[in-house]
Amino acid sequence: MTHIRTARLSGVGVGPGDPELLTLKAVRLIHGADVVFAPVRRPGDRSLSLEIVAEHVDERRQRVVTVPFPESQDGESWDAAARRVADELGPDRHGVFLTEGDPLLFGSFGHVAAIVRTLRPDLEIEIVPGVSSVTAAAAAAGVALADYQDRLAVVPATAPHDQIERALVDFECVVLLKVGRVLGELLALLERLGLVERTVYVRRCGWPDQQVVTDVRALIPSPPRDYFALLIVRRR
Amino acid sequence: MTHIRTARLSGVGVGPGDPELLTLKAVRLIHGADVVFAPVRRPGDRSLSLEIVAEHVDERRQRVVTVPFPESQDGESWDAAARRVADELGPDRHGVFLTEGDPLLFGSFGHVAAIVRTLRPDLEIEIVPGVSSVTAAAAAAGVALADYQDRLAVVPATAPHDQIERALVDFECVVLLKVGRVLGELLALLERLGLVERTVYVRRCGWPDQQVVTDVRALIPSPPRDYFALLIVRRR
Repeated sequence: MTHIRTARLSGVGVGPGDPELLTLKAVRLIHGADVVFAPVRRPGDRSLSLEIVAEHVDERRQRVVTVPFPESQDGESWDAAARRVADELGPDRHGVFLTEGDPLLFGSFGHVAAIVRTLRPDLEIEIVPGVSSVTAAAAAAGVALADYQDRLAVVPATAPHDQIERALVDFECVVLLKVGRVLGELLALLERLGLVERTVYVRRCGWPDQQVVTDVRALIPSPPRDYFALLIVRRR
Repeated sequence: MTHIRTARLSGVGVGPGDPELLTLKAVRLIHGADVVFAPVRRPGDRSLSLEIVAEHVDERRQRVVTVPFPESQDGESWDAAARRVADELGPDRHGVFLTEGDPLLFGSFGHVAAIVRTLRPDLEIEIVPGVSSVTAAAAAAGVALADYQDRLAVVPATAPHDQIERALVDFECVVLLKVGRVLGELLALLERLGLVERTVYVRRCGWPDQQVVTDVRALIPSPPRDYFALLIVRRR
């Protein structure tokens, strides 16, 4: 009789920052994993997702592998990340791949999973959703995103200007992500559209230094450039 | 010396159905609450959110109050729901108000909170985000919602037809919620736009009878009418 030993990979959303926003399932899988993959923006950086789950990881018992996470869509660097994951997961090994927020909403686990699947068709892949920074920021700001027939658009601030404007004009609620470098331009656009009073700024949502600014006009003279910042624009 | 006794209300997202998708914070607050408010669609219905958290509620120790939840925007029924909540929370009492998914993304806690705030300005109100059915359905289907410059639109299937079509033509990803009664029409629209092959149907996400249909063309002859169903349309 042969015991079939399957390797497993779980893409796990760890929420926006607050360790208490981990799901029970994330905690169980992280605790039981042989290998914990933690993405980092640049080699040598600390991993924010690893920081979020720190109290559930035991480095004496578990292997922790940091994986540099390409900022671009560059196929080659995705290949390297996926190969790193595939190489670690021998028979009967279980890996968790951490992502801030949710794995499939700007969490990029989709790319890793797609390549790992071709490299290792034997691997069982599971995805565990997490609390997204979109809803966490709304909770922090006390702003309802959508109800009834409202439509919500989630748009990266790096999208073309005309796409952002179209969403702002059309949707009841727009969340603009990663506003860091372009906050000044966005505030000017919101002013032109008469939406500044309907906008909330949330920075470093879920972290101890989280900041919610409801009077965003005050940001116009000197817009902060924090990468982990978003705007919620509520038209009604 | 006076001990200031503050009443507290926490709007808590309990995720889409799977009890393991509760956050640690939700579990802690539910466990510590004096009163658990559980919305129901119609008086006498069982509460889905209460079912999700059942193992964390102790009815011998905690008071459980079901609150009929208006399906419409009718102000009067919201008033009744909010008054019910306010009346239960005497000094030093802590209530949790459960919502499926997330409290502020079609979770309607915004309405309750707004009215409770006027009735009881002394009450401390906190909102705890939860895993949304949007990201949970994507995880179940293994479909990435958005990455890099992609834009995501979340649109109730009850929105006007032209708004739905505009989102489908413009956005890289569209999630159509509550497709129950109009699934047939939506499938016809998706066929006309050449998007049927790019669509996934997810029903009862997170519940034991969850169903994921990747070949949605098969649904066209006899579209199911399940209320808790959504479509994910991924243009690229």
